[in-house]
Amino acid sequence: MPFARYVSFILAIVIAGSCARTVTADDASTARPPNFVVIFADDLGYGDLSCYGHPTIATPHLDRMAAEGIRFTQFYSAASVCTPSRAALLTGRLPVRNGMSSDRRRVLFPNSGGGIPAEEVTLAEGLSEIGYVAGAFGKWHLGHLPQFLPTSNGFDTYFGIPYSNDMDRVSGDPKGRAAFWDPKVEYWNVPLIRDTEIVERPADQTTITRRYTEEATSFIRSHKSEPFFVYLAHSMPHVPLFRSPEFEGHSRRGLYGDVIEEIDWSVGQVLQTLREEGLAENTLVWFTSDNGPWLIFGDHGGSAGLLKDGKGCTWEGGMREPAIAWWPGTIPAGTVSMDIGSTMDIFTTCLTLAGGTVPDDRVIDGVDLTPVLKGTGSGARDHMFYYRGTELMAVRFGPWKAHFHTQGAYGADARKRVAHDPPLLFNLEHDPSEKQNVAGDHPDVIEKIRQIVVRHRENLEVPPSQLEIPLN
Amino acid sequence: MPFARYVSFILAIVIAGSCARTVTADDASTARPPNFVVIFADDLGYGDLSCYGHPTIATPHLDRMAAEGIRFTQFYSAASVCTPSRAALLTGRLPVRNGMSSDRRRVLFPNSGGGIPAEEVTLAEGLSEIGYVAGAFGKWHLGHLPQFLPTSNGFDTYFGIPYSNDMDRVSGDPKGRAAFWDPKVEYWNVPLIRDTEIVERPADQTTITRRYTEEATSFIRSHKSEPFFVYLAHSMPHVPLFRSPEFEGHSRRGLYGDVIEEIDWSVGQVLQTLREEGLAENTLVWFTSDNGPWLIFGDHGGSAGLLKDGKGCTWEGGMREPAIAWWPGTIPAGTVSMDIGSTMDIFTTCLTLAGGTVPDDRVIDGVDLTPVLKGTGSGARDHMFYYRGTELMAVRFGPWKAHFHTQGAYGADARKRVAHDPPLLFNLEHDPSEKQNVAGDHPDVIEKIRQIVVRHRENLEVPPSQLEIPLN
Repeated sequence: MPFARYVSFILAIVIAGSCARTVTADDASTARPPNFVVIFADDLGYGDLSCYGHPTIATPHLDRMAAEGIRFTQFYSAASVCTPSRAALLTGRLPVRNGMSSDRRRVLFPNSGGGIPAEEVTLAEGLSEIGYVAGAFGKWHLGHLPQFLPTSNGFDTYFGIPYSNDMDRVSGDPKGRAAFWDPKVEYWNVPLIRDTEIVERPADQTTITRRYTEEATSFIRSHKSEPFFVYLAHSMPHVPLFRSPEFEGHSRRGLYGDVIEEIDWSVGQVLQTLREEGLAENTLVWFTSDNGPWLIFGDHGGSAGLLKDGKGCTWEGGMREPAIAWWPGTIPAGTVSMDIGSTMDIFTTCLTLAGGTVPDDRVIDGVDLTPVLKGTGSGARDHMFYYRGTELMAVRFGPWKAHFHTQGAYGADARKRVAHDPPLLFNLEHDPSEKQNVAGDHPDVIEKIRQIVVRHRENLEVPPSQLEIPLN
Repeated sequence: MPFARYVSFILAIVIAGSCARTVTADDASTARPPNFVVIFADDLGYGDLSCYGHPTIATPHLDRMAAEGIRFTQFYSAASVCTPSRAALLTGRLPVRNGMSSDRRRVLFPNSGGGIPAEEVTLAEGLSEIGYVAGAFGKWHLGHLPQFLPTSNGFDTYFGIPYSNDMDRVSGDPKGRAAFWDPKVEYWNVPLIRDTEIVERPADQTTITRRYTEEATSFIRSHKSEPFFVYLAHSMPHVPLFRSPEFEGHSRRGLYGDVIEEIDWSVGQVLQTLREEGLAENTLVWFTSDNGPWLIFGDHGGSAGLLKDGKGCTWEGGMREPAIAWWPGTIPAGTVSMDIGSTMDIFTTCLTLAGGTVPDDRVIDGVDLTPVLKGTGSGARDHMFYYRGTELMAVRFGPWKAHFHTQGAYGADARKRVAHDPPLLFNLEHDPSEKQNVAGDHPDVIEKIRQIVVRHRENLEVPPSQLEIPLN
């Protein structure tokens, strides 16, 4: 039954403009460090949630999470495609530093032999060093050989698919993109793995969102008496789109909406589990996505809202994401933050809050967002680098974004890289849709950004790409 | 000081998915009919409020209004430009029926001699007949000769400008559009009227949002013991953009954001006044706008978010608007409604709730949205007509929208009207950005819409246009 309306809040006692805190978790957190849950969607667009303005996708649980927590409006993934974006989230480092980017192959494939290098420190490794138990549930895409799987990267357990759900395409009918419009599980021979063993192939993707959720909530219940880290990386809404029978026809937005509304249900299950177990005030939950919507898939792809373009490119729609953080009693409820944030900051923020060690033997690109979360200060992040493979395409500094190169995302456009000298310059806070190039008016800003690039390159080491290593 | 963050809610006790009611105002409303406040913005885009997804405009008061009330995601003005849109709001009738549309002049100008016909029944007239006191504050634009002003149309008092704030342009320097980029009050010789007398010329637009607000809240305080109707029609964010000194540099979005944030402040003042006077539970407040953003004005114009195009055309961006209704104790807090609604429905809903008479001697296009507001039923509106002047350009029926004609909004594009046979067909709920024409797949839907058009035309009488009547 499609929703005609939904109610996110029954009683909202609201005091606008104040920053008063009701409860603090400080005492609890000195006794025991906070738990962390990172819920990561795949190809979700900036405009795909109701609390980010979508007109026909109902997301009451995410809306509630935002109303009880903080909603970021200028939060970035570190890449516009899957593998490098995930590598950055888990290491706090730009993919150009950690070997997980390439100019030839943008992501890992089933015929790839590479994966996340052993010398990289993942968030799970950093937390397990100080006594956390860690579980990964969902899509991995950082290498499918045993030495690259989650259980070799700091996680105690894993349940999920090792790469994208549109890989391992079974040849036959229907061919090519036709298979996506009426997808059936058997068209993609994707394996479902528990720890390191394949337990189902093809993975039954119709129930995969529900099963990831059940695994994650079960893990939380089992480990409620020790500090935990849950990485719940949904394989949806990446095409081919699947949802549980309970969500068929659930959304006015059609199949894509059904899929988002099941992810919204999943978020509700996680938060409800934390409440029921008395863990809400000692758990920081993040929700965000790996990159923008896959626009070439029409209504099977999402919406970047008012942002330009989508997945695969360095316009805002490719890398700016919905991002919500929730920690009742510590994050002031109903905060809207315009601070710049990045998935890489999740690494540094969580490790810092846990009392762990942020590695100091390498460059870490993540910054600590704790003051932003707590409402005690502004963000430490004043810039953002937009890479495509190993090419620095654009740089944001404060409200300004300079595009040194632009390039289309998919198809014929993907081969058209255009260099800009002077760079295109947009004021993203005045002009979030990147419509008005104001380079001519601000040579000083361009010069400042050029200096940032020079400094950035001074400490940039680019290791060999793992994405170009063939299987065997 | 620009906002880095803002807090909309401090404590939100939230029960998602439930429709439980906490308090009802039924007893009070049988004793005394509800008051009505309609806050109407000018050229505000679908994507311009934080609760509709804008990243850098802070609207804590409107966000709170939505959290305490109902936020519509598919709500329409009845025209894509000012005069016909306002005529429809106040009469519950399509502008093609009430003489306030034309194919030659799209709105009234200072050299126009026409105005809203005396035989039209305005919402103020309908309410004053049953004992309401009514005040209009802000932009009128339904005729500036005395017989057309608010005080001749059911309002007891009026304070505002009679037409758009960019009219009465003073010739000289700077010429043309250059005057808008650094606007000064003296460039536009717009009169400010109290009741029927000009009290200031040029109107000091820098303080106009504040003064409208003060007049409206003062009117509410003065009439708190009788049923009242307040029509607060801001002349902003129509260009030229002005805001009070207190709002200079207030927004990260620049001047346009300052202007929206002052309107947001204004909404907060009105709601706070109602709370302070104990009127909140007996007052229905609406907030919406007359048409989409004026895109040719660059960052002095707004954003339609994910919708296509803006002011002046019949793509969604021209006519779909933010719309929030607030009535604590009667509207379940935090509702997001995907029901189709229209500004014309405000007329019918308010008259019905007041126990007044919806005229039955003419076609009324508004429907009663009370069941939607109260959460007791779905909307009665299953269609929407998109007119440009007297030309029916497009029709929405359920999720479907058929474009029989499309035409650009301004400049050279405005002269390019393209006929479509079969019409372009979009599923707006799957494809809100109108990207995928699916006419070929749904001939049955097109046939159904053609029948709706036939029936619509059977009872359509088009009077002579008031917009073509010259002054003297």
